[in-house]
Amino acid sequence: MNSMDSYKKAVLLVIDGLGDLPTPKTPLQIAKKPNLDKLAKNGITGLMSTIAMGIVPGSDTSHLQLFGYEPMQFYPGRGPLEALGIGIELEQGDIAFRANFATVTDDLSIIDRRAGRIETAIGKELEKSVNMKIEDVEAIFKSSVEHRGALVLRGPGLSASVTPTDPHGPGKVLESAPLEPGAEKTARILNKFSKEVYARLKKAEANKGRKLPANMILLRGPGPFRYVPSMFEMFGISSACVAGGALYKGVARYVGMDVINVEGATGTKDTNLKAKANAAVNALKDHDFVFLHVKACDSFGHDGDCKGKAKMIERIDKELISILAKSGAYLVITGDHSTPCSRKGHSGHEIPILVYGKDERTDDVKNFDEISCMKGGLGHITGRDVLPIILNLIEKSMMYGT
Amino acid sequence: MNSMDSYKKAVLLVIDGLGDLPTPKTPLQIAKKPNLDKLAKNGITGLMSTIAMGIVPGSDTSHLQLFGYEPMQFYPGRGPLEALGIGIELEQGDIAFRANFATVTDDLSIIDRRAGRIETAIGKELEKSVNMKIEDVEAIFKSSVEHRGALVLRGPGLSASVTPTDPHGPGKVLESAPLEPGAEKTARILNKFSKEVYARLKKAEANKGRKLPANMILLRGPGPFRYVPSMFEMFGISSACVAGGALYKGVARYVGMDVINVEGATGTKDTNLKAKANAAVNALKDHDFVFLHVKACDSFGHDGDCKGKAKMIERIDKELISILAKSGAYLVITGDHSTPCSRKGHSGHEIPILVYGKDERTDDVKNFDEISCMKGGLGHITGRDVLPIILNLIEKSMMYGT
Repeated sequence: MNSMDSYKKAVLLVIDGLGDLPTPKTPLQIAKKPNLDKLAKNGITGLMSTIAMGIVPGSDTSHLQLFGYEPMQFYPGRGPLEALGIGIELEQGDIAFRANFATVTDDLSIIDRRAGRIETAIGKELEKSVNMKIEDVEAIFKSSVEHRGALVLRGPGLSASVTPTDPHGPGKVLESAPLEPGAEKTARILNKFSKEVYARLKKAEANKGRKLPANMILLRGPGPFRYVPSMFEMFGISSACVAGGALYKGVARYVGMDVINVEGATGTKDTNLKAKANAAVNALKDHDFVFLHVKACDSFGHDGDCKGKAKMIERIDKELISILAKSGAYLVITGDHSTPCSRKGHSGHEIPILVYGKDERTDDVKNFDEISCMKGGLGHITGRDVLPIILNLIEKSMMYGT
Repeated sequence: MNSMDSYKKAVLLVIDGLGDLPTPKTPLQIAKKPNLDKLAKNGITGLMSTIAMGIVPGSDTSHLQLFGYEPMQFYPGRGPLEALGIGIELEQGDIAFRANFATVTDDLSIIDRRAGRIETAIGKELEKSVNMKIEDVEAIFKSSVEHRGALVLRGPGLSASVTPTDPHGPGKVLESAPLEPGAEKTARILNKFSKEVYARLKKAEANKGRKLPANMILLRGPGPFRYVPSMFEMFGISSACVAGGALYKGVARYVGMDVINVEGATGTKDTNLKAKANAAVNALKDHDFVFLHVKACDSFGHDGDCKGKAKMIERIDKELISILAKSGAYLVITGDHSTPCSRKGHSGHEIPILVYGKDERTDDVKNFDEISCMKGGLGHITGRDVLPIILNLIEKSMMYGT
């Protein structure tokens, strides 16, 4: 391998939920996106199934796969990734959960499982009163945006093989139960946590006068944290992440990326795309590889808002792609899965992918969309192929054999 | 299976390092190659990743994969393949190394790690004085071309888990060290070998008066030899190899091919292509499958010589393809990996592949190059697919099921 060449860095831009279905056109086909189309014209394109053809990927597993980490081997469950994303320092053996503030009655019947989507500041205020010690276990809670947060249990003899307390629908707060021998203690701690949280939150200052007081924390997605080799250890590259959403930052921290916090990168529809693009380009100075994530197209897909998704793509093209295209870095642009507006949820349809670099091969595809990329020179690839392609672009591959 | 048909034989032509990047055209696009283009027009084409998309293959692993031997299962390391290629008869348990004659000072500091690229005849002369017995271990050395050779250790209790004596750069001859318990003896033998080689070579007749005497042998790429099932045992086909370079002959011997030595097949840029093509066609008389290897395109790639690579492709087209095309055999033409002239090294970019046979399907690709073959009817395949395709062509496949 020869790495003396000029500018061997790469940006992987993941436009969340990018792929769609034609109604009769897809958002990518509707959107005016001269910059993306120019990159398609001067690059090489194809279609990608993040996991495998037809498989519907979650956001966590799909990102792990794109970063070169086989989900079957490395997926720790959603809890640890959320907790890392919120900024909790995890330790080997910690059990982490996704958490929701909710409103419940005295008999723990759920009235609103998001506590009226409390403001982020209220969550931060309440957070202080629910960190506690139960038996010999520390319960570490941190809130994130609105009603969301993560809980970490730290102590001896814990297990992630327990049922959730969150019914994920109407009903009562669930009693956690062990799923295998040895998990009894963890279930008991969780049930004590639910009781103690209710006792503390119902008299919390920040809940006073609220119609839907945030007086419960619902838990789901348990997972055990363990250290995994970093991208530097696995692939010999330094890497950075620019993202708004906690989950994406969490996956990035899990694989050892430097997470760069950007003012205005909210993970929502009004995110500051220019700031994110500039932060990504800036991060290229001292990283081989930058992962840049934009969430909003997925949210428009979940809302069934095809026009909104097309408009978001136009914003990305104008405010973000224009900056990336001038960076001189290799660009790999794709999504983590399709979120068709007609389905309002993830689907297993392939996602367009585009590879651009000044010395790379080109095909004759001139537009970046689901239909044009069917004829792309990359053909049909999977998420497993993406990191090897990137390592090959920036000449950081380890040769297989001699 | 039906093997009564007329002429069911196949040649696999591997043009080493064939694939390239556009600057702005690739050597395959630049070269005038009417015979290859005619085969493309009348055959079916595609792109191949020898190992997997984006993975940078070595020459040894890639050939094993093309012959239907999974490298993860069958790769013995470089040493045994080189030793076999040089013509050493290996036995189960032998530990083999790649070897270089070098010039060192009395304190074993390396002055020239190729001993001034000594003539092949000098190496042959010196070879005699460095075969020795150390403790109960035989050290069998054989030189090949210029400063190159292979060392085999044969005896009880040996291990390949030792560090090399070749620093593969400036410095001193390294002390070999065991990498795991049980490898101490092998490391000790290697260190005794270094000392004894220096003692013997510094007074060797052939070194007298040389400015850069070949007074040391540097060792790397240790690997244990073991018998693997031959291609006949694995796939039921008789096979032959026509190649110049020792490594390619070595891989061929390892998988049980008959290695045919051809006058003028040097593995260099002035190799006798007509002689090789004729030898391959001749070998078809009593073999089902002939592997034909041409090295020089890879060498031009390593030298960054795009025009030289294009001219070599033109020579191959004129002197070799013309003969193969008249053989009546099925032809599979590809490379083992890309060696882009702009990178001067191997890369993980796909390699064009072409399958031709008078009764085979055809696509509408008319030129054999990296860009045209993106649209080929074979699509994107891997090295794992190549031998099954060949067995299917010559009707030697074992049916999977009934």
